[in-house]
Amino acid sequence: MGNPFFKNNGPFKISDILKFLKIKETTFVDLEVSDIKDLSIADNNDITFFHSKKYVDIAKVTKASFCITTENLKNDLPKNCKPLIVDNVLFATSKITEKFYPNSINDNFDNNPINIANTNFKDKVNYGKNVLISENISIGSNCSIGHNTIIEKNVSIGNNCFIGSNVILRNSLIKNNVTILDNCVIGKHGFGFFPNQNKNIRYPHIGIVILEENCEIGCGATIDRGSMSNTVIGRNTFLDNQIHIAHNVKIGNNTIIAGQVGIAGSSTIGNNVKIGGQAGISGHLKIGNNVDIAGGSGVIKSIPDNTKVMGYPAKSLRKFLKENKWYIKLL
Amino acid sequence: MGNPFFKNNGPFKISDILKFLKIKETTFVDLEVSDIKDLSIADNNDITFFHSKKYVDIAKVTKASFCITTENLKNDLPKNCKPLIVDNVLFATSKITEKFYPNSINDNFDNNPINIANTNFKDKVNYGKNVLISENISIGSNCSIGHNTIIEKNVSIGNNCFIGSNVILRNSLIKNNVTILDNCVIGKHGFGFFPNQNKNIRYPHIGIVILEENCEIGCGATIDRGSMSNTVIGRNTFLDNQIHIAHNVKIGNNTIIAGQVGIAGSSTIGNNVKIGGQAGISGHLKIGNNVDIAGGSGVIKSIPDNTKVMGYPAKSLRKFLKENKWYIKLL
Amino acid sequence: MGNPFFKNNGPFKISDILKFLKIKETTFVDLEVSDIKDLSIADNNDITFFHSKKYVDIAKVTKASFCITTENLKNDLPKNCKPLIVDNVLFATSKITEKFYPNSINDNFDNNPINIANTNFKDKVNYGKNVLISENISIGSNCSIGHNTIIEKNVSIGNNCFIGSNVILRNSLIKNNVTILDNCVIGKHGFGFFPNQNKNIRYPHIGIVILEENCEIGCGATIDRGSMSNTVIGRNTFLDNQIHIAHNVKIGNNTIIAGQVGIAGSSTIGNNVKIGGQAGISGHLKIGNNVDIAGGSGVIKSIPDNTKVMGYPAKSLRKFLKENKWYIKLL
Repeated sequence: MGNPFFKNNGPFKISDILKFLKIKETTFVDLEVSDIKDLSIADNNDITFFHSKKYVDIAKVTKASFCITTENLKNDLPKNCKPLIVDNVLFATSKITEKFYPNSINDNFDNNPINIANTNFKDKVNYGKNVLISENISIGSNCSIGHNTIIEKNVSIGNNCFIGSNVILRNSLIKNNVTILDNCVIGKHGFGFFPNQNKNIRYPHIGIVILEENCEIGCGATIDRGSMSNTVIGRNTFLDNQIHIAHNVKIGNNTIIAGQVGIAGSSTIGNNVKIGGQAGISGHLKIGNNVDIAGGSGVIKSIPDNTKVMGYPAKSLRKFLKENKWYIKLL
Repeated sequence: MGNPFFKNNGPFKISDILKFLKIKETTFVDLEVSDIKDLSIADNNDITFFHSKKYVDIAKVTKASFCITTENLKNDLPKNCKPLIVDNVLFATSKITEKFYPNSINDNFDNNPINIANTNFKDKVNYGKNVLISENISIGSNCSIGHNTIIEKNVSIGNNCFIGSNVILRNSLIKNNVTILDNCVIGKHGFGFFPNQNKNIRYPHIGIVILEENCEIGCGATIDRGSMSNTVIGRNTFLDNQIHIAHNVKIGNNTIIAGQVGIAGSSTIGNNVKIGGQAGISGHLKIGNNVDIAGGSGVIKSIPDNTKVMGYPAKSLRKFLKENKWYIKLL
Repeated sequence: MGNPFFKNNGPFKISDILKFLKIKETTFVDLEVSDIKDLSIADNNDITFFHSKKYVDIAKVTKASFCITTENLKNDLPKNCKPLIVDNVLFATSKITEKFYPNSINDNFDNNPINIANTNFKDKVNYGKNVLISENISIGSNCSIGHNTIIEKNVSIGNNCFIGSNVILRNSLIKNNVTILDNCVIGKHGFGFFPNQNKNIRYPHIGIVILEENCEIGCGATIDRGSMSNTVIGRNTFLDNQIHIAHNVKIGNNTIIAGQVGIAGSSTIGNNVKIGGQAGISGHLKIGNNVDIAGGSGVIKSIPDNTKVMGYPAKSLRKFLKENKWYIKLL
C-alpha cells in the first residue's frame, strides 16, 4: 500500500490468524503471512480480502496467498489463494489489519509535539508562534509554517511549501511547492466504521494523504487519509475553501475544485476536471478526464471523459438545459 | 429546561414582569414566578409563551401559571394559566428570558480560562500544549484533550472522552466515551434573533448541548446550544466532517450522518437514521426512525419511520428513481 | 479601488509598462501612469483593463488614459483612452497589477505579529490567551478578542467589536459593533488564478474585506478579500455558521444568511434578502432587494427585487411548488 509511516507488526503465522478469526481449518501449511493488502497489489505470502462481486475480475488474478472472503465468493479465487471463510469480511479484515498495524486505528491527538523553536527545524523553516512539531517529520528547504499549526507524527514536507496558520497535519506526504491555507485538517482517519448497535467499530486506516507538487488547498479543508489505499490530490490541482475530501479519494492533475465541494469515499477524479461550488460526488465513482461538473450538482454515477454535467442527479449539460429551457429564458 | 449551567436570577413578582412588559393589568394576584419554560414542561408558578396555532394542543394542557401570548391565541389557554397579551410574543419572551438568565445572551469569549497545567486537572487528563480550562468544568477519568483546545465555562465531560485539537467547548454536557475531532465549535448560541431594521436583537439561549454516550463528532462541526430546549446528539451517533447542527435539534441513537450535512433549528431526527453527504434538513421537521436520506437531498417535510428519500425536495426513493429513470439507465 | 492597505509602487512610465508587456508601440507620449483600476473608477493617468463585451457600456465612458484590451474590443474605448493590445487581457492585467502592488499576491502567513500583551493594545482591549497582533492595526474602544486569534497586517477594527477565538483576520476594515464568531478566516486572497498546465498563476488581490456596522459573522466563515474591488458585508447583515463568501462579493444591509451558504465570486446581494441554509449562488449575478431564496436552492441567474425563489436551478417559488404539487400534498 506504499505506506511509509505505519509500522507493520507482522509477519504472523497463518495458524495464528485462523485462531484469531476462530476459523477451524487444519489443511493449511503453516506459512508466515507478511502483510495485508488490497486484492490488486497483494503479493505471494500476503493476505487480502474479497467481499463483493464487483471485484471479481481482480479477485480472479490476485497473487495473495490467503483471502478473507465468504462461502459465496470463494470459488472466484485462483488456486494459489486459500479462502478464509467468515460471516463479515470487512469486520474480519478490520481485525486482521489492526493486528498488523495496531497504531493505525487510534487517532487521538499526538502528544509528542514540541515547539519548533526547540527543534533542529528552527534554523531551516520560517515559522510562526506556537508551531508544534512531532516525531518522524521531514521538512525541505524554503518552507514556511504559520502560527499555531500542529504537525503531528508521520509527515514529510517537500521544498518551497507554504503552510498557513491553525493547520493540523498527520500521516501525510507533501511534495514540493504545495500551499496549504489556514485551518485545514489533513491526514486524520476517514469516516469508516462498522455500524454496531451498542458502539460502532472503527476499522483501521493505514493509508496516508499525498499532496502532489504545486497543488493548493484552501482554508478549512478536511482531507482524510485512506483506509486500505491512499488519498491523493494531484499535481497542480487547486482546491478552494471549505472542501471535504473523504478517505481513499484520488484526484488527478490540473483539476480545479470550487468552494464547499464534497467528495465521498473512494471516488476517483481525472485530470483537468472543473467542479463548481457546493457540488457533491458520491462514493466509489469514476469521474473521467476533462469533465466539467456545474456548481451545486449531485453526481451519483460515474462520468466518462470530456463530459459536461449539471443537476441533481447530475446529467449531461445539454439535457439539463433542455429540461429547464423555460427557466433559462425567463425567471 | 434541565439546564445545569445558567443561573436563574428569579423568582420575580408577576407585577414586576407586567411592569417590565408595559402591560396594564391589575386583576392578577401578585404571585412569585419561578422560571420561564416551554409550554410542555412549564409547571405551576412558571411563565411560558404561546405564539403560534401549531402549538395549540400543548397550550391547552399547559401547567404554567402565566403565558405570554396574543389576543388571538389567549382563548386556547386553560383556566389555570393567565394570559399576558403582547404584540410580539417572541420578542417579549426574549426580554423575560433575559431577565431570568442575564448571562445567556452574551456569547463573547470567556476570559476566565487558564492553562490546564495550572489546574487540578493536570494530573488526571492527558493534555496537549496551550489547553485552556475555565470555571465550572468537570472532567471524568481517562480523558485526553488536544493542543490549543479551549474549554470555556459550563462544561461537563464524562469518562474516556477524546477531544481533539483546536476545539472550542462551552455550555455542554458530554457523556462517557465521546470523541470530538479537531476544530469543532460546540455550545455557542444559535442563529436566533429578531430581525430589526437598525440592529437585530438576539434572544437568549438558555439550552445546552448534550452529547450522549459513545457518539463521535467529526472535524470542523458546529453544534449550537438550544434556545429554550437543549440540542442533543444521541447515543452511538456518528457525525462526519464539516457538519452544522443548529439550535434545539435533537438527534436519536445509532444515527450516521455523512460530511457537510446541515440540520436547521428545532428539527428532530430519529434512531438508526442514515443521512448522506451534503443533505440539508429544514427547521421544525420530524424525521422518523430508520429513515434513509440520500446524499444531497433537501428535506422540506417531515418523514415517517422506515422511509427512504432522495431529491430536492426529498421524495420517496422509488418516486425519485422513477422520475429519473432515463438517467439511471444512461448518462 | 479605495484600498487603504496595499502600497502603490507606482507611478510607472507607460514606456516601461509597454516594455514589460512586450508591446511595440512608439506613438504614445511617455506619460506617467499613477495606478491600475477598474473601468468604472479609473481616472485620468490611470491604466485599466477591458476583457469582455459585457462591460462595453462602462468601457465607452472610462476616464482611464490607458486600457489593456484585445484587438476585438479596442474600438469600444473612448478617444482619451489608448488601447494596449495583448493576447490575454486578464493575464497581462495581473502582471501589471503585481507591478503596482507587489505585496498583494503573496498570502503566506504574516510573521510579524507579537503577543498583544506586549503591545499598546494591552490596556485597551479585553483579550484572551495567545492573541497575536501584527503591524498596521487599529482597534477602537470596548473591543474584545478571543483566545488564539491572529490579527495579521492591515486590519482596522471599530468600537464595540467582539471577535471570537481562533479567528484569523487580515486586510480587513471592520466597522463599529461587529461580531465575528470563532474559527473565521477573513481577508485572505480569493480563489482567483489563471489555469496553467504546469503551475497555475495567481493574480493579485488588491481589494479588502469590509464588514459594515452591526453585522455578525458566524463560526467557521471564510470571507475572501477582493481582487480588483472589495468584498463587502452590509450593515446589520447576519451570517450563520460555515458560510463561504468569495472575492468581490457585495452583500447589502439587513440581509440574513443561514448556515453553509456559499456565494461565488463577484455576485451582488441586495438589502433585506433572506437566504436559507446550504443555498448556493453562482458568480457574477445580481440578487435584488427583498429577495427570499429558499434553503438548498442553486441560483444560476440574477433575481429581480421582491422575488421568492426555490429549487435548483432556482425558479419562482410559485413555479417550484406547482411542479412539486403532488409532493407537497403527500410524501
